[in-house]
Amino acid sequence: MTKLDPLIYEPLLRRALAEDLGRAGDLTTSAIVPADVSVVARIVARERGTVAGLPIAARVFVLVDDRIDFQLEVTDGDVVEPGTVLARVSGPAAGILTAERTALNFLGHLSGIATATAAMVESVRPHGARVADTRKTTPGLRALEKYAVRQGGGVNHRFGLDDAVLIKDNHLTVAGSVKEAVSRVRRSVGHLVKVEVEVDTLDQLAEALDAGVDAVLLDNMTIDQLRAAVDLVGHSVITEASGGIGPDTAPAIAATGVDLLSVGYLTHSAPNLDIGLDS
Amino acid sequence: MTKLDPLIYEPLLRRALAEDLGRAGDLTTSAIVPADVSVVARIVARERGTVAGLPIAARVFVLVDDRIDFQLEVTDGDVVEPGTVLARVSGPAAGILTAERTALNFLGHLSGIATATAAMVESVRPHGARVADTRKTTPGLRALEKYAVRQGGGVNHRFGLDDAVLIKDNHLTVAGSVKEAVSRVRRSVGHLVKVEVEVDTLDQLAEALDAGVDAVLLDNMTIDQLRAAVDLVGHSVITEASGGIGPDTAPAIAATGVDLLSVGYLTHSAPNLDIGLDS
Amino acid sequence: MTKLDPLIYEPLLRRALAEDLGRAGDLTTSAIVPADVSVVARIVARERGTVAGLPIAARVFVLVDDRIDFQLEVTDGDVVEPGTVLARVSGPAAGILTAERTALNFLGHLSGIATATAAMVESVRPHGARVADTRKTTPGLRALEKYAVRQGGGVNHRFGLDDAVLIKDNHLTVAGSVKEAVSRVRRSVGHLVKVEVEVDTLDQLAEALDAGVDAVLLDNMTIDQLRAAVDLVGHSVITEASGGIGPDTAPAIAATGVDLLSVGYLTHSAPNLDIGLDS
Amino acid sequence: MTKLDPLIYEPLLRRALAEDLGRAGDLTTSAIVPADVSVVARIVARERGTVAGLPIAARVFVLVDDRIDFQLEVTDGDVVEPGTVLARVSGPAAGILTAERTALNFLGHLSGIATATAAMVESVRPHGARVADTRKTTPGLRALEKYAVRQGGGVNHRFGLDDAVLIKDNHLTVAGSVKEAVSRVRRSVGHLVKVEVEVDTLDQLAEALDAGVDAVLLDNMTIDQLRAAVDLVGHSVITEASGGIGPDTAPAIAATGVDLLSVGYLTHSAPNLDIGLDS
Amino acid sequence: MTKLDPLIYEPLLRRALAEDLGRAGDLTTSAIVPADVSVVARIVARERGTVAGLPIAARVFVLVDDRIDFQLEVTDGDVVEPGTVLARVSGPAAGILTAERTALNFLGHLSGIATATAAMVESVRPHGARVADTRKTTPGLRALEKYAVRQGGGVNHRFGLDDAVLIKDNHLTVAGSVKEAVSRVRRSVGHLVKVEVEVDTLDQLAEALDAGVDAVLLDNMTIDQLRAAVDLVGHSVITEASGGIGPDTAPAIAATGVDLLSVGYLTHSAPNLDIGLDS
Amino acid sequence: MTKLDPLIYEPLLRRALAEDLGRAGDLTTSAIVPADVSVVARIVARERGTVAGLPIAARVFVLVDDRIDFQLEVTDGDVVEPGTVLARVSGPAAGILTAERTALNFLGHLSGIATATAAMVESVRPHGARVADTRKTTPGLRALEKYAVRQGGGVNHRFGLDDAVLIKDNHLTVAGSVKEAVSRVRRSVGHLVKVEVEVDTLDQLAEALDAGVDAVLLDNMTIDQLRAAVDLVGHSVITEASGGIGPDTAPAIAATGVDLLSVGYLTHSAPNLDIGLDS
Repeated sequence: MTKLDPLIYEPLLRRALAEDLGRAGDLTTSAIVPADVSVVARIVARERGTVAGLPIAARVFVLVDDRIDFQLEVTDGDVVEPGTVLARVSGPAAGILTAERTALNFLGHLSGIATATAAMVESVRPHGARVADTRKTTPGLRALEKYAVRQGGGVNHRFGLDDAVLIKDNHLTVAGSVKEAVSRVRRSVGHLVKVEVEVDTLDQLAEALDAGVDAVLLDNMTIDQLRAAVDLVGHSVITEASGGIGPDTAPAIAATGVDLLSVGYLTHSAPNLDIGLDS
Repeated sequence: MTKLDPLIYEPLLRRALAEDLGRAGDLTTSAIVPADVSVVARIVARERGTVAGLPIAARVFVLVDDRIDFQLEVTDGDVVEPGTVLARVSGPAAGILTAERTALNFLGHLSGIATATAAMVESVRPHGARVADTRKTTPGLRALEKYAVRQGGGVNHRFGLDDAVLIKDNHLTVAGSVKEAVSRVRRSVGHLVKVEVEVDTLDQLAEALDAGVDAVLLDNMTIDQLRAAVDLVGHSVITEASGGIGPDTAPAIAATGVDLLSVGYLTHSAPNLDIGLDS
Repeated sequence: MTKLDPLIYEPLLRRALAEDLGRAGDLTTSAIVPADVSVVARIVARERGTVAGLPIAARVFVLVDDRIDFQLEVTDGDVVEPGTVLARVSGPAAGILTAERTALNFLGHLSGIATATAAMVESVRPHGARVADTRKTTPGLRALEKYAVRQGGGVNHRFGLDDAVLIKDNHLTVAGSVKEAVSRVRRSVGHLVKVEVEVDTLDQLAEALDAGVDAVLLDNMTIDQLRAAVDLVGHSVITEASGGIGPDTAPAIAATGVDLLSVGYLTHSAPNLDIGLDS
Repeated sequence: MTKLDPLIYEPLLRRALAEDLGRAGDLTTSAIVPADVSVVARIVARERGTVAGLPIAARVFVLVDDRIDFQLEVTDGDVVEPGTVLARVSGPAAGILTAERTALNFLGHLSGIATATAAMVESVRPHGARVADTRKTTPGLRALEKYAVRQGGGVNHRFGLDDAVLIKDNHLTVAGSVKEAVSRVRRSVGHLVKVEVEVDTLDQLAEALDAGVDAVLLDNMTIDQLRAAVDLVGHSVITEASGGIGPDTAPAIAATGVDLLSVGYLTHSAPNLDIGLDS
Repeated sequence: MTKLDPLIYEPLLRRALAEDLGRAGDLTTSAIVPADVSVVARIVARERGTVAGLPIAARVFVLVDDRIDFQLEVTDGDVVEPGTVLARVSGPAAGILTAERTALNFLGHLSGIATATAAMVESVRPHGARVADTRKTTPGLRALEKYAVRQGGGVNHRFGLDDAVLIKDNHLTVAGSVKEAVSRVRRSVGHLVKVEVEVDTLDQLAEALDAGVDAVLLDNMTIDQLRAAVDLVGHSVITEASGGIGPDTAPAIAATGVDLLSVGYLTHSAPNLDIGLDS
Repeated sequence: MTKLDPLIYEPLLRRALAEDLGRAGDLTTSAIVPADVSVVARIVARERGTVAGLPIAARVFVLVDDRIDFQLEVTDGDVVEPGTVLARVSGPAAGILTAERTALNFLGHLSGIATATAAMVESVRPHGARVADTRKTTPGLRALEKYAVRQGGGVNHRFGLDDAVLIKDNHLTVAGSVKEAVSRVRRSVGHLVKVEVEVDTLDQLAEALDAGVDAVLLDNMTIDQLRAAVDLVGHSVITEASGGIGPDTAPAIAATGVDLLSVGYLTHSAPNLDIGLDS
């Protein structure tokens, strides 16, 4: 699942370009750069990280001018060092200058997510845990951000409210019990939908196991609680730790034996990876 | 310019909700929460920061169910402490649960930007400098992110390629000289468009002042170079420092006497502000 | 999961109305019906069936004129007899006449699907089997058609290519074996995604069970093969029969003991339910 | 009028593909099928019928991957036998597998309509009558479904509320008389718009002929009434029979001498034509 | 047909407002006008003319702020004098100032068309001729401009390429003869579509009458030719004069006895009607 | 700034084509012109003027059929005489006939604006004044119409409410004084936004100069007032005359010494330039 269909992201690229071009287009380039000037430029990493978004950046340049040629030097998921050339862009200078910022905005943002994911994946690997994303994504960019998480070695949690069930505390309050909530869900959703329950206590966890769920989200538990939860589950279902997990706290949480850590930080707070265009 | 017209952002909110609802909608809530259950919930800050995006969050809830009532307890631009209630949301529980994540994704992201901006504005205030954003924004969210910068006390740079001229190094290379580049621009753009030139050296700066620009972007200069540049300009035009400025380097750069610091960090790397929904 | 969020279907309703109104609007009504003429009309079933789409029909009328009042007399999922009044529509005559055909087109189509589903659900009930839909839906209407299947008592299969894995014969050919195909999928997809394999033979079925899938699609098997397959599986995973199943063949297939029948007929060939507007 | 401009249907194809790809795309194919695997496949009729939609199916494949080659073996409007190869599709296997279902959904649906139309056209041919469609089409697909009717030898009635006038019983009630209704319409619509009136009785028919209409819709009349109506009209205007006409009743209605039968069944209840992809 | 359904024009209004608001919205008003300032303003004609577009202007204000009240003082189609108050607009000052220009742009443009139409309708009335529009409309505004023509007393010609047939010289060249062209069309289009032929000579006109068309477009004929053509036709079909007709030439052309003049000038060259907002 | 990015205008072209094609497409051409007929045609000016919109016309033809070849004979901004061939269009006859009207509608409208602009630019040149457009543009076409103004030698005023500040009389009323209005604006808008004030009197003008604005709009002043205003300003800021300026009044206004005349007439009342397609 490392690919991303252009049919999914192209409308977003067009909107991003429209946002930058506005009504009058690139005033500066249009005034200064004659149509017949060509240029060869390089997209270069300015810091170490994991790259994500090169096909998207390529598509941005081509949408602006389909005579622009974009040659990959590395591929998404690669770890690059400062100074690494990621791609070579050649063709009409005007189009390249106009597309530059939009292309780099995608590339820097997605590579930032991939880099943060890769670092956390690395930090929890000794414990056999995996790192998953959440629905705490930037509005409008979910498919792309989850693609970036995959490039960093992470695992995707739900893409939306409709591709899996996650029963949260508010749902439990309304239903009255884990059992009743799971029962309502089972009667309602299709047979290819997995059901996960968010639990805060070991009692709730026991209830959830009884109710026959596919996964449990252990929310805001202490390290001790997590260990006890993992013991209780004994790999009968998937265990997932969640709740404000960051780079500092991830290894200790992973050491409790949970299967996954789900981490909002990856998509809502990962800093941009510094990538530039040199000509 | 602290307001933001709903006509500008509502299409974005609809896309964000569509992204989360997918084809089948909120499977969990739909299965568990009866239509007649109502709830009163509070949107609460979990850490200190500057809030931005409350009208947007309000609109998200109303788009999901127009019977949901959203009462502001603070307003955008306010500084809040952990535990501060930002708003009270009441009405049908199903709609509130369905809208929650999308609303919080906007609110956390924009408040994160406002908070980072406010911190930097504060740190440079003793030097009389202002903090400006850039076009290094998240694709699709520029109008909202620049609104968040304003809530944090920042100043907006260009909204796109078409509302001001910024002559960069690549443009200068094509034109051959600052003078020629500015001349081409003056012949081309309207009389209500300001012209700024990015300069790397004091020689280029002198050329730019000669050419009669409205502002100069002092790019990646050392502190000493910036001081010399400010001396040279003597407030005849706006001076702006740029190039990888972050929270740590901002005060020293501000101390050089530049009018503004333009900072990509605010919009591409500010972490999310932790805001939740308690019921 | 019986509800359907208006945010999901409203864009479709607007397109359907635009399709009918064209550029000049309702020439006939506009010429003949003065703005101040009101009417009370009834939406009436002309044949027996299961209703689906009333909230959608209601929304069509309101989009045309928000002064139109739509009162439900039955609700989606109800079985109605010829002559049953489904809803009462009152308000400006012009708007009601303009919206009538679009509203009825949705209502007749979705009720047709619900009715065909309900009939098949009934026919297989003695055998404890359930009836599922497929991705063989009318382009653009999948969310609505799957909603109609639910109203008829059916179960939803995948909503698209991205909410569950279904490994088909062509995938197996490329992968070389069921085991390899499942292994590739497990490395690629998230932990909340179920995996189903389409099998044509008992040997393939055994391979699939070995590989550890969540469900098996028994494709175009004879009654005898289906019985043997059900024996082999012994309820360890979900069993689903598929392949040209229609009203005539469903009961015998259900009698083999499979958990589900997945039936393209429900959404691609169910005839319209005859529903009209009487004034 | 057998062609259909791609500008008209391409937005619909993109929406249909987006509906199937969702946010994450084709999980199964993406995980299993390497980018460099090519395939040659055939689109094959599994039952006898009249084909419609091949250019649309071709466009679906190309939208998914423009390296896919689609070679027609028959053309829209052709009658095919079980086993007839309709087209050969070759190129990247991943794209072909991803596009398959969407392409076949269009092709099966439109060919089903063409097939039902052709059968009815054949059945009424001895009587010199033609078969027309109605506005009882699937929401969003009207232009395509009416194209399919043409491929089956049928005639198109109105495409919407705005390309011809059809005065129905409710309009007559408001206007007070056929004469007044026609008069209002003539004052209102352009000179290139035809006017048809729906009549239930011979008296109304006489009034309509007096009022000078272009066509009359003889609604829900008995065979005897239809014969009398045809006599009364004597080919002075177009006569059209309507009202629940199906394959069984069409020949007898055609035998009354009406010019056309307008038949909702063609577009709202024609079963899918079974067409598959073999590789 | 004097009404225009808001479903048809509202998307256009939203695009027009988005075009004016851009990314940052109304900088001036947002900076200066507090949210709680209300205003009462009048929309006033500054010159004599026929008004068209008031419901559209009203909708523009409401889209910007739904608390704005818009009270009509005249209605579309009315002739107004300089100083006539067309409507009163009251509510939040900020919204009224923001919407003003977009609302007036619609109103001035459409009223300009209605005014030019009314003048020409008046000038040809003594001859019993009517004035029709053409497809020479401003891109994107056809439905609105044709509505404005109706307000001025004009008649609508085709709304597009698909609601009537107009066989032009290039079509005749391809077909070889009028007879063949009409024959091809009759076999192709539905029974509710009128057929018009453009003729340049009396010979072609005779051919067209033979072929049995519904209307003839007498293109670029001299006054003498037009008179002869009208004689030849003798009211057996609709006669329409076309070809560069303007206010000066219309009366003489009308005097030849043609039924209609079709006039591109109305929609492509009518000057704006001066209408302003006074507060 | 003479170029216009296709990303900006292509959505508008698609909407214009959709508007003309409707649901059924080009009935006439589809019935008469076989797919294999090719044609060579010329786009010809029928009157003298300045051309604008050729790349847009070219794109319209290609969108309809990408096998159509469009060869420019002149370029936008050129002055052409009656009979001048602007471009040669060759390829499939059907596509060329279908695209013709939409292409010419853009070309005639934009060339009309360029022609009116060029005439006024010429008439004021002896006085050293320039001609600017306004926001009084046709809804939806602003970017294109302002492009046409540039082709005629004119200067662009604001593209919308968000790319410069223009303080009008209503804003001044709310603020209480020019000084207060300018002060509010300066605190609110970014450093790259110019500020202009509309003044009606010399007193207001003096206030505006005091307040430190970038430009003044001298609204509806007499020739004497304009002269006095120009004296008062003495080139310290940009002076712009506005208010119902037309071809007749422009030279005298220009003679007062103002820098610019801003003229709504150019975009809201310029007549179409007559351009046709000859084959």
